[in-house]
Amino acid sequence: MKEFARKQREENRIFGLVPTMGALHAGHLSLIKQARQQCSSVVASIFVNPTQFGPSEDFAKYPRTLSSDIEKLESAVVHYLFLPEAKDIYPQNYSTYVNVDGLSERLEGRIRPGHFRGVSTVVMKLLQIVQPQFAYFGRKDAQQAAIISRMAKDLNLDAEMVTCPIEREPDGLAMSSRNVYLNPSDRQSATVLHRTLQAAQLLLQNGTRDALSLQSAMHRVLKEEPRAKVDYAEIVDAQTFEPLTHINRKAYVLIAAKFGETRLLDNMLVDFSAGGQLTSEL
Amino acid sequence: MKEFARKQREENRIFGLVPTMGALHAGHLSLIKQARQQCSSVVASIFVNPTQFGPSEDFAKYPRTLSSDIEKLESAVVHYLFLPEAKDIYPQNYSTYVNVDGLSERLEGRIRPGHFRGVSTVVMKLLQIVQPQFAYFGRKDAQQAAIISRMAKDLNLDAEMVTCPIEREPDGLAMSSRNVYLNPSDRQSATVLHRTLQAAQLLLQNGTRDALSLQSAMHRVLKEEPRAKVDYAEIVDAQTFEPLTHINRKAYVLIAAKFGETRLLDNMLVDFSAGGQLTSEL
Repeated sequence: MKEFARKQREENRIFGLVPTMGALHAGHLSLIKQARQQCSSVVASIFVNPTQFGPSEDFAKYPRTLSSDIEKLESAVVHYLFLPEAKDIYPQNYSTYVNVDGLSERLEGRIRPGHFRGVSTVVMKLLQIVQPQFAYFGRKDAQQAAIISRMAKDLNLDAEMVTCPIEREPDGLAMSSRNVYLNPSDRQSATVLHRTLQAAQLLLQNGTRDALSLQSAMHRVLKEEPRAKVDYAEIVDAQTFEPLTHINRKAYVLIAAKFGETRLLDNMLVDFSAGGQLTSEL
Repeated sequence: MKEFARKQREENRIFGLVPTMGALHAGHLSLIKQARQQCSSVVASIFVNPTQFGPSEDFAKYPRTLSSDIEKLESAVVHYLFLPEAKDIYPQNYSTYVNVDGLSERLEGRIRPGHFRGVSTVVMKLLQIVQPQFAYFGRKDAQQAAIISRMAKDLNLDAEMVTCPIEREPDGLAMSSRNVYLNPSDRQSATVLHRTLQAAQLLLQNGTRDALSLQSAMHRVLKEEPRAKVDYAEIVDAQTFEPLTHINRKAYVLIAAKFGETRLLDNMLVDFSAGGQLTSEL
């Protein structure tokens, strides 16, 4: 892969990387679409990264659908697939980890200790191997995208990290490889995440700026769905992921909840135009 | 610096980096000499890296001798000097650290917690900024060199890390920017480090392979110098820095000791030829 990437650079190709764990869905395909618009060569990687799973998490049963993934990548006209094995990414005596302090310990990081260390380490390795000018990440995992952007900036990487919009099912559920775990009742219940964000969006559009009021309203919607075991519903600064009390800058409204054994994430991006006008993106 | 380095790469220049904290001495100049032999462009960096100093260490009083350093770099025909400021290397909200687990916690790492995390982070940043094909480090700091080599391998960097021999004063003291701290009595006493390694070398040449015997002999020599406050005298595997009981592979004989308030390091590299013949390098 390194040798190939070097040759591409010598030919002055603009090189884009879409790192995935496979089990591809329309969310991944939207990253590829965006990559194809900006880059002359697009590499997708598929690697279910063991270091980002906790000991009691779903590494072993994470969905692996390689042949269907390859079909989807061919249809999406990805130029190259990088498909490394764990023993090549983490050979014997492997010892080096990249961590983004602070950002990696909040919210998802508190619930999944070590998760983001695994993510930033593997992304750093993929970026060094492929050396793309652009790399693409989905906004559904907003904290991950913020951590990777922070890492790229802090470590003076050349590559630009691009965060792409959330793709949703027709009923609003955010696309995720883990949605296949949901049984029919939980699948139905999981739409409460999107409804909750819609409720928050309406309140914001009607002028609510107090984070606590918004949070209370969100919890009221979430409680209507007894199958949802809510981990958090938070409003945070979009760069630092520190909680906001007053919503007056770029922010994320974040939800994490379990349905059965399946943890799902969703979020809304809130921003303000130059004129101070609120904008929001589900 | 990034822009300049990009242009050099486009011209297919072979690019070498010699990262330093300034206070240059013959040891640094030997790194530059080696770099000039392998590379068509040599960049030296001078940056007294705050993140590798502990709160009670000598960051504030670390010798800063910029105008004399620049003269030396000009005489050594370094092509470029990279002289960043702390606020540019660690801007506001800086949060990302690279750590080599295990290796960074032993020996120097145990005595100076966080030290190697600071070193590997700043070297990673310099490597990303300058993007050299080769980077040069002195073997006097053997553990640092091993950690950086491990990091470069683990994170799939293109650059090759080169470890260069120790330069010594005529009386055997290993060159170090911290030698200037020594008062005349401590300067005289500090030669015990080299004498201790010479004694170990003689024993090895005479067939000693038991690490404990070698260690005891080293401590006997060190005790002859009451001004030396010894931190450790160890024989370790040259890659993992784990203690060896039997010396039968590539190894370091390491010493760390304080003279007054000044901590000094020295070491000997032990290896075996293909025929099993011992070689050693002071």
